[in-house]
Amino acid sequence: MTSIGIIGAGTGGLHLALQLVQAGMDVTVYASRTAEQVASGRMTNSVAHHAVTIDREARLGVDHWPVAEFGYDAHLHYFGLPEPIEFIGRFQRPSRAVDYRIYLPRLMADFEDRGGRLVVREVDASDLEPLSEAHDLLAVGSKQPWVGEVFGRRADKPQPDGPLRRLQVGLWHGIARSEPHGVSIAASPGSGDLLEIPIYSAAGHVTALLFENVPGGALEHLASIRHDDDPAAFRRAVLDALRQHYPRTFERVDDAEFALTGPDDLVQGAVTPALRNDYRQLDNGRFVVAVGDSHATVDPIVGQGANSASASAQVVGDAILEDPNFDLRLMRKIAERRRDRVEATFDWTALMAGPPPAHLLQLVGAMSQDQALLDEFTWNFNFPDRQWDILATPERVASAVARSAARKAVV
Amino acid sequence: MTSIGIIGAGTGGLHLALQLVQAGMDVTVYASRTAEQVASGRMTNSVAHHAVTIDREARLGVDHWPVAEFGYDAHLHYFGLPEPIEFIGRFQRPSRAVDYRIYLPRLMADFEDRGGRLVVREVDASDLEPLSEAHDLLAVGSKQPWVGEVFGRRADKPQPDGPLRRLQVGLWHGIARSEPHGVSIAASPGSGDLLEIPIYSAAGHVTALLFENVPGGALEHLASIRHDDDPAAFRRAVLDALRQHYPRTFERVDDAEFALTGPDDLVQGAVTPALRNDYRQLDNGRFVVAVGDSHATVDPIVGQGANSASASAQVVGDAILEDPNFDLRLMRKIAERRRDRVEATFDWTALMAGPPPAHLLQLVGAMSQDQALLDEFTWNFNFPDRQWDILATPERVASAVARSAARKAVV
Repeated sequence: MTSIGIIGAGTGGLHLALQLVQAGMDVTVYASRTAEQVASGRMTNSVAHHAVTIDREARLGVDHWPVAEFGYDAHLHYFGLPEPIEFIGRFQRPSRAVDYRIYLPRLMADFEDRGGRLVVREVDASDLEPLSEAHDLLAVGSKQPWVGEVFGRRADKPQPDGPLRRLQVGLWHGIARSEPHGVSIAASPGSGDLLEIPIYSAAGHVTALLFENVPGGALEHLASIRHDDDPAAFRRAVLDALRQHYPRTFERVDDAEFALTGPDDLVQGAVTPALRNDYRQLDNGRFVVAVGDSHATVDPIVGQGANSASASAQVVGDAILEDPNFDLRLMRKIAERRRDRVEATFDWTALMAGPPPAHLLQLVGAMSQDQALLDEFTWNFNFPDRQWDILATPERVASAVARSAARKAVV
Repeated sequence: MTSIGIIGAGTGGLHLALQLVQAGMDVTVYASRTAEQVASGRMTNSVAHHAVTIDREARLGVDHWPVAEFGYDAHLHYFGLPEPIEFIGRFQRPSRAVDYRIYLPRLMADFEDRGGRLVVREVDASDLEPLSEAHDLLAVGSKQPWVGEVFGRRADKPQPDGPLRRLQVGLWHGIARSEPHGVSIAASPGSGDLLEIPIYSAAGHVTALLFENVPGGALEHLASIRHDDDPAAFRRAVLDALRQHYPRTFERVDDAEFALTGPDDLVQGAVTPALRNDYRQLDNGRFVVAVGDSHATVDPIVGQGANSASASAQVVGDAILEDPNFDLRLMRKIAERRRDRVEATFDWTALMAGPPPAHLLQLVGAMSQDQALLDEFTWNFNFPDRQWDILATPERVASAVARSAARKAVV
């Protein structure tokens, strides 16, 4: 029986593991923590899964959080200009955010229930050769620092040197649902963006506030002020940021209820984007393939990391099932089939996290006048490659705006 | 309305043209000959279309030759070893060969009937800039010598320096149908191969004899002896070749009827394989995309040229319809999406036309004992990429043989 080893129990690693177990392969996942440790640990992120990812979960038999209860339907955009611009984009089908301390342990259990082997141990680069020889193929979906050295950044692709934003994300009680129910995406030009995400956590249906702060901007301190030193001061700083920069969310805050859902329900830091090579041939001749964060690491500003990891894991899984020969030909197929989507995710994220170029502002202006174009942009959170078809160049934005206008004229 | 110009009226150019006209685009095909000139001209090749190509023709509304009447179902293999090996592979669905002097004129007429514009004129490299400015995108599907210079050989891909075989193909009366009805593929080790193809031409249901002669081998003269100087001697030389090298075909020859169907129904020559770059940016900044023989030229030994041209034209057509932005991003998408199939066609053809390596002989031996593996190989004439999954390396052949044996054991 074909034996696959997977290092890392994030979305990429687990989705790949579940697909291969479903197909009857012998799959071992090497995780750094037990399911219980993940469940009881500190929050690591705030992740929304879009419809295409949820569809994949349904195929994998792990869609445990029906969108009727856990989903949301819209993106509520706000641009804090002197004359604010607001508009609402609709998804064709809902997205959903579930705390990964619920999500990942449940998928780890599903994997074991179906005959997968979960081994909890630390792995580093020196373990790759022996592990590669214990399996027909080894996949790596870890975000530990050694993966950067193993796979190396893609030399053909310009990449930022450091983080584009300074982050704070926490889970909060005391924010009323938006109407329509959705993710609020608010821009405070020069300071940053706020993503307000309805999320299901151990505390129930709560709100994630993901502050995407511009380095050197007025809100950069949110990424570094220490909660545990002075929780009240921390809460005040967040409230002040909402009041001054993100009024639409502030309006829905109930001051009496507004509180972090728990001391562990907070992350601060920054992400250095990296797009690494798809695979590496080890000195023993065997190939290891990168999935998830080992392959592409992106800022969460457009919420694509996990969705990309899942899509890319499926490319790897499909390729393995279709052509179980673990050689250069398979590696090239994998690289080729996922390149456009992964690179589009990377490029789109970099565009949104950097200083906005004129053609992005042109698209925003056009979307504020054109619901079809706005809904296309919103639904394209499922399809980063199609989003990049619109956004890749000023000419492409102009052409998308013109096509949408032409469609409107026909209607 | 989007305007596409296509240079060349072969299978690649016409299939692309028909797809884009079907989608409502403004399409101009530049052909070097009128439909009447093609119909009344010399034969240029003997081409079989496989089921995936016929499916595409059905979608394009040009499947005028129902396989019930025009198709065939099998490949009859013969290896002329001291102890001959023979076996018969079955297609899941039929293939079909129609003389291109019937096929192409009919598609040219279909294209014009549907609103396409057919312009008969010579085109060379100096016409590309003005033509590129007369259209949103220019595709080139010509086999004229200038296309080699325009697109250039792929530098990353080792390529043969010259022809691998010396060819003669003619249409003949007087050969009884094989049982089952199919293409006979006979190897005369060291001398060459014969493909005996049931084909529909102006003379009715006749037989194409495609002699694939090894340079320096006993049958090389077939590519150069002149028919018109001495038709009787030419006929004798062909009969002698059949008698001495291809006995299964010779057995079905009716000496009284055996004759070339006409003096124009004969081609001799050789093909220098070439795999060229997918596109070229002209000095005016515009891109031209290669299709068909402009992109990949292959020896006819596994009959893949036209099937590859059609598949690759559809990649171009689909990409244009999905993302009508005629820039580098579109060119890269096209290159990526068709690379594996086109390269697999190129590599598989080169493998079959060169001296057979041990792993190819291993596969032949295994197929002679394993009908499922043989039928998979046969059906894979529809899927060169899957064929190359089996054939790319000795390890892959071993693995395909082992998998097929395991399946047999289960049954």
